[in-house]
Amino acid sequence: MSHNFAQDLEHCALPGALEAMGERWSFMILRSAISGVRHFEEFQATLGIARNILANRLARLVENGIMVRQPMLCDRRKVEYLMTAKGEDLVPAMIALRQWGEKWGSGAPCTPILADRRDGKPIRQICILSHDGRSLGLGDIAWLSVDEMRPVSCDAEHQGAPPEPAAA
Amino acid sequence: MSHNFAQDLEHCALPGALEAMGERWSFMILRSAISGVRHFEEFQATLGIARNILANRLARLVENGIMVRQPMLCDRRKVEYLMTAKGEDLVPAMIALRQWGEKWGSGAPCTPILADRRDGKPIRQICILSHDGRSLGLGDIAWLSVDEMRPVSCDAEHQGAPPEPAAA
Repeated sequence: MSHNFAQDLEHCALPGALEAMGERWSFMILRSAISGVRHFEEFQATLGIARNILANRLARLVENGIMVRQPMLCDRRKVEYLMTAKGEDLVPAMIALRQWGEKWGSGAPCTPILADRRDGKPIRQICILSHDGRSLGLGDIAWLSVDEMRPVSCDAEHQGAPPEPAAA
Repeated sequence: MSHNFAQDLEHCALPGALEAMGERWSFMILRSAISGVRHFEEFQATLGIARNILANRLARLVENGIMVRQPMLCDRRKVEYLMTAKGEDLVPAMIALRQWGEKWGSGAPCTPILADRRDGKPIRQICILSHDGRSLGLGDIAWLSVDEMRPVSCDAEHQGAPPEPAAA
């Protein structure tokens, strides 16, 4: 590694992300939200989570801007919790964790299957890609300082060879 | 959604993955391990974590097969902790979380920058891809049962149009 990554904890976004999301119930609440769960009672029944913990986690998700709490349009006495754009942006991380659990877990098939709505075919394994779409392993990536990094130039993107498709 | 995802918690790999990894210190320990930290004292100094919590989390990571604890080759009285292949497979999920924190966090630049070792250019945003490499949003994916899913056939892959590169 050309950079001592360990020294840079304070400038890394991972600790902040984990501060907001680094708790299994928060992920499980979002996982339910993706599938259409919106109400406190539904979350409680789906997840089997204690009511005080659920209330705490929902409040934290709202506080962090990951979910929004609002009266229902059809019945304003009822409240629903919806994912924000910030919350939806967590989905790739959630899917990566799910795929990891599937690969390294009990070996039991993971259902339902996440598929492309257009053709019904399963999505790819989430992976690290270079700027031009090559699949990168841990040994292919480096932690660079701003000085060491080379920008992804627009010229290179448009005048160079077409990007290679990522490995299937 | 064509499937009630909420009913299938017991067949989903996410709860198991979170059971093993759903705790912020576990991610932070792995993050240090990626940058070359190997010894208890180094983890402790880098992360500023209480010794009893660090010991507990390292033991859990070893128990879950994410790290391995072994005597050092050069000095067998010393012990080191290394990531296993199962641990390395968590890196895409960690990077996805880090990128999310970068995008939605304080707005401060996240350093060091994760780059392709080959050309020094920053890696892409981790995203959801279809079997043929199209970038998919949350609205483009569906949760399907095994019966509803269409397999990714080898013929279609090789005889059809070349896969579109994912959006940069």
